[in-house]
Amino acid sequence: MTGLNTQKIAFIGTGLMGAPMALNLLAAGFDVTVWNRSPEKTLPLVAKGAVSARSPTVAVAGADIVIVMLSSGPVCSDMFFGPQGIAPAMKKAAFLIVMSSVGVAEAEDMAGKTAELGLRWLDAPVSGGTPAAAQGTLSIMAGGELGDVRVVSPVLSTMGRVVHIGPAGTGTLAKLVNQLLVATTIAAVSEGLLLAEAGGANPAKVREALLGGFANSRILELHGQKMIAGTFEPGGPAKYQIKDTRAALDAARKLNLELPVLELADQLFSSLVAHGGGDLDHSALFLELKRLNKRLPEGSILTP
Amino acid sequence: MTGLNTQKIAFIGTGLMGAPMALNLLAAGFDVTVWNRSPEKTLPLVAKGAVSARSPTVAVAGADIVIVMLSSGPVCSDMFFGPQGIAPAMKKAAFLIVMSSVGVAEAEDMAGKTAELGLRWLDAPVSGGTPAAAQGTLSIMAGGELGDVRVVSPVLSTMGRVVHIGPAGTGTLAKLVNQLLVATTIAAVSEGLLLAEAGGANPAKVREALLGGFANSRILELHGQKMIAGTFEPGGPAKYQIKDTRAALDAARKLNLELPVLELADQLFSSLVAHGGGDLDHSALFLELKRLNKRLPEGSILTP
Repeated sequence: MTGLNTQKIAFIGTGLMGAPMALNLLAAGFDVTVWNRSPEKTLPLVAKGAVSARSPTVAVAGADIVIVMLSSGPVCSDMFFGPQGIAPAMKKAAFLIVMSSVGVAEAEDMAGKTAELGLRWLDAPVSGGTPAAAQGTLSIMAGGELGDVRVVSPVLSTMGRVVHIGPAGTGTLAKLVNQLLVATTIAAVSEGLLLAEAGGANPAKVREALLGGFANSRILELHGQKMIAGTFEPGGPAKYQIKDTRAALDAARKLNLELPVLELADQLFSSLVAHGGGDLDHSALFLELKRLNKRLPEGSILTP
Repeated sequence: MTGLNTQKIAFIGTGLMGAPMALNLLAAGFDVTVWNRSPEKTLPLVAKGAVSARSPTVAVAGADIVIVMLSSGPVCSDMFFGPQGIAPAMKKAAFLIVMSSVGVAEAEDMAGKTAELGLRWLDAPVSGGTPAAAQGTLSIMAGGELGDVRVVSPVLSTMGRVVHIGPAGTGTLAKLVNQLLVATTIAAVSEGLLLAEAGGANPAKVREALLGGFANSRILELHGQKMIAGTFEPGGPAKYQIKDTRAALDAARKLNLELPVLELADQLFSSLVAHGGGDLDHSALFLELKRLNKRLPEGSILTP
């Protein structure tokens, strides 16, 4: 897409994930205006050539592409359609790309309102966390028109690998599937390593042996290591994991789907949070399974 | 270990897994005598230099290392200690290496009897299936004395990557953990892809997007592909998957462990088998979840 780097991009929400994502846009030579509720978080971006706008509506004025990385669906919706909403302030036919993780119904609702205003919508949530955001290797799950995904692909590709999942809302659905798999696989790995430990095998050796075979997963590799080391600094706090399992269960219920493994994982994470583990990394589900089996180590951060 | 290739190896059980494993021993220059219940299965090995023995006791006579790849724990136990058992016919201080998947209690029992006879025991089950057996890239989980594992490591390494897990029985336990993770991850991936499909996303695109992130697993890669293609030729038949989940649950019960995700996976696989899916690949759990949600495609091989 020749000349696309001359397009104007507005980036709303430059927090833990948004800042490194915007840095990759700047590094690729794009013209980026940024806004963040705490303006000091935009300073490292300004140092790399971004313009810091004094309000969201100022940021999006004249922008061809608006990228949003805020904390939740309701926050996004208010940012777009609330009293100081940016959607009415956007150029006709400009892109509104929501890279936050939101609910499927929320995404579909926002996509509809955006279309009514003559704007182009993509939900494009990401997986990979802050390391992948910094390296520009996020997995980007895009829902919307295929033609639109193609147009903005040179922009999104600076931040990661883009896969077009289907119509508006399906990028969000793919992210929920991602979160479902993360939650359930953490539960599975917790049970596996607990069985190893209780049976007198060295869990570190079991993990090492299993990494090469059918049982291998990124969760066994990364979260399994945390379980074995007993270090549960987040990472992804358990309390946010519940937000994800609930959103996936909500989506399933609206489709009349029963997903028993997801329900069980949701219950286990809820129990972890109820026993004081909400701020621990979600890999601390290993401790919750020990608690349920009355094998919690002495002095554990969880209440017995 | 200089001179180890001059040691005599007996290989008992040259079926689907055993034959390619023995071929790798022959390719590495070891002196291998083989025995199999159906003698014609030893012919390809004889063509590569193996000696075919007319009975198991003849095969193990004079062997320094006896490797066993039979179908189950009871079959192994009868082979070793039954009326025509090989254990009393083995050289003193020879190695008995069981690479079959057996129960933990079975492995511990056999290890004890083996030691009483003055033999050296290793349980060394494998993961990776026939492709890895052919390529010599199995994951080999060894339980037994570390010194013994070191002595036979040049032998086992011709078949795959060896990890010493701990004392006798723990190799078997590690294999159960492997099977626990395979079963539970298949259940998780089934739910994830069903949610994607039911919500109108292309499951193939969801899988593609997720392969790069935290949700990635060998199961998503290999079994997820089978679920999407709707091809369930085994591979690993669902009826054997139940054998594994039951063995893992048995081991857990003996340790007073409750593992709810494993229990749920066992129930789901049992239901799959009860509805006619026993001979399908274990990835057909995807169909069972559709059946439970009354979304079974017309003409499905499962009974509704």
